[in-house]
Amino acid sequence: MIRIGLDTMGADFSPLNEVSGALSALSESTHEIQIILFGKQDLLKEQLTNNPFPGRIEIVNADEVITMNDEPVAALRQKRNSSIVQGLIALKEGKIDAFVSAGNTGAVMGGATLELGRIPGVSRPMIGSQFPRSNGGFTLVFDVGATVDAKPHWLKEYGVMGTIYAREIFGITNPTVALLSVGEEKSKGNELVLESQKILSQTELNFIGNVEGRDILLGKADIVLCDGFTGNVVLKFAESVLITLKTRIRAYADKGIIQKIKAAITASVLKATLRDFDYQEHGGVPLLGVNGVVIIGHGSSSPKAIRTMIFRAEEMVRKDICGVVRTALAKENAPV
Amino acid sequence: MIRIGLDTMGADFSPLNEVSGALSALSESTHEIQIILFGKQDLLKEQLTNNPFPGRIEIVNADEVITMNDEPVAALRQKRNSSIVQGLIALKEGKIDAFVSAGNTGAVMGGATLELGRIPGVSRPMIGSQFPRSNGGFTLVFDVGATVDAKPHWLKEYGVMGTIYAREIFGITNPTVALLSVGEEKSKGNELVLESQKILSQTELNFIGNVEGRDILLGKADIVLCDGFTGNVVLKFAESVLITLKTRIRAYADKGIIQKIKAAITASVLKATLRDFDYQEHGGVPLLGVNGVVIIGHGSSSPKAIRTMIFRAEEMVRKDICGVVRTALAKENAPV
Repeated sequence: MIRIGLDTMGADFSPLNEVSGALSALSESTHEIQIILFGKQDLLKEQLTNNPFPGRIEIVNADEVITMNDEPVAALRQKRNSSIVQGLIALKEGKIDAFVSAGNTGAVMGGATLELGRIPGVSRPMIGSQFPRSNGGFTLVFDVGATVDAKPHWLKEYGVMGTIYAREIFGITNPTVALLSVGEEKSKGNELVLESQKILSQTELNFIGNVEGRDILLGKADIVLCDGFTGNVVLKFAESVLITLKTRIRAYADKGIIQKIKAAITASVLKATLRDFDYQEHGGVPLLGVNGVVIIGHGSSSPKAIRTMIFRAEEMVRKDICGVVRTALAKENAPV
Repeated sequence: MIRIGLDTMGADFSPLNEVSGALSALSESTHEIQIILFGKQDLLKEQLTNNPFPGRIEIVNADEVITMNDEPVAALRQKRNSSIVQGLIALKEGKIDAFVSAGNTGAVMGGATLELGRIPGVSRPMIGSQFPRSNGGFTLVFDVGATVDAKPHWLKEYGVMGTIYAREIFGITNPTVALLSVGEEKSKGNELVLESQKILSQTELNFIGNVEGRDILLGKADIVLCDGFTGNVVLKFAESVLITLKTRIRAYADKGIIQKIKAAITASVLKATLRDFDYQEHGGVPLLGVNGVVIIGHGSSSPKAIRTMIFRAEEMVRKDICGVVRTALAKENAPV
């Protein structure tokens, strides 16, 4: 029985979406899971009056709430009885096997690093994101914001962790790894890229050199590595594309009856063809490199996203991703 | 009479699109312009057998071609009789007032910096790009790839040049200037952003702090500043969005008759609503910071894009953008 801790406070629709997501995870999961809800007991009990899964869902009271506006470091120190801190402590103490949160991302990342510590050989934890590709499938980009700056050997570690994640979770046997840069030629890039090329080409990773910004969607590599600043800017830019499309189509619809009909058809086609562009529906992303399975989601995560995050957490525990990363990083030249 | 030099070699559809764009610029321009074509005389004469603008279009022979695959620095040294080098020398010598090229971007940037030199007070030339906004209008992003790295005082100079460009060319009286970062809070950013904040807030620029990747399309600032690495990655990512949309809609259309019809309607709506996302149609972007007006375009520039580039060059000469930048950067704290 894999025990998933779920933060139920501090996100945009807490605890409604979390509880609803937990219930659908329990009803749909093909694996044995138990869900432990961290949050205000009274609120959660209200939501669970008709609990269809007695024994498979539990509540651990946490009276404090780290909000989206809280400064992470201060909040982690001051709100020790928050769902985030209590959940991460439970994970450290082995009372749960994974922790899932749609709350304050900075607090979850900071708290996880503080409470769980880094896996030996990991300089910085990282978060990845799945970017959908024009031809289907997706590109994994690491890091998308766990750490703003990066050093060449961090990018190597990102490559190792990313390769394991792609292989174990998505079944990509020998994933290609590339550096995000301003041109494909070896000579193109900033200092970080040029230095990282040398280090990455000495590993046993399937390193294919540089790719450009366009190649994330066009799918030239399975894994694209960059510093968290660049990755975060691209991720947030990507998230604004759907919003922009919707805004433009709405404005078009306002022009008249015919336009309204054409806009409705367009919206339905885009909904069908760009489903994987809706970042909410992916569920969250793992924080890789800490001693424990931690999944971070959008503040606005839907019940479906929460459910997907729970499934992802269960899978990462079942496949012992942390253990595989630990073993790989202990070897010379990261032979994965 | 403003004399625009046009590189007619080395782009994807050279010299066809260049000549065709030049002719439509001459027929549509409301200002007095003369166009000087730099390239292989024989090829150009063939294209101009029925020149409807005798006296307003001239050919300067340049036998060598810098191709897209040429390494810029080597090409600039070895191909002195190329259209790019000859055009830039003509600009330096005052034989033309501006130079427009859809050729090898690196060679044009490098050649312009070498031949024309930087405006006093400019540490690095920059190129900007217009990103369309969800609600219409656009955001100007500087630098999108002239220099991969950046220092805080370069970003200040980018801010000054960008402000002048936005004001003089687009009539935005007091454009807002922001730093691209991973969060809006002052504490969010990499070293470059945190240092640049201090410098920018001491200028008389209309500096509003940080914006995130999503705010480029959502339009939180008129001008967004970043190092050329980040800017280039975002620009190329953005360029791949339309390609991805088209690919997805084509795949949808292949599913059946009804889908084909719905896809056609979708394509027409997107064409109408996302016209400004077609980066080709903007025409090119100016290389700001060198002693002379230089416009750089996509290798795949259409005749319409070439025409727009010629108009932009004419406007920049007429409004003496280089002179305004020179005056502004000579002042203390860049009061613009």
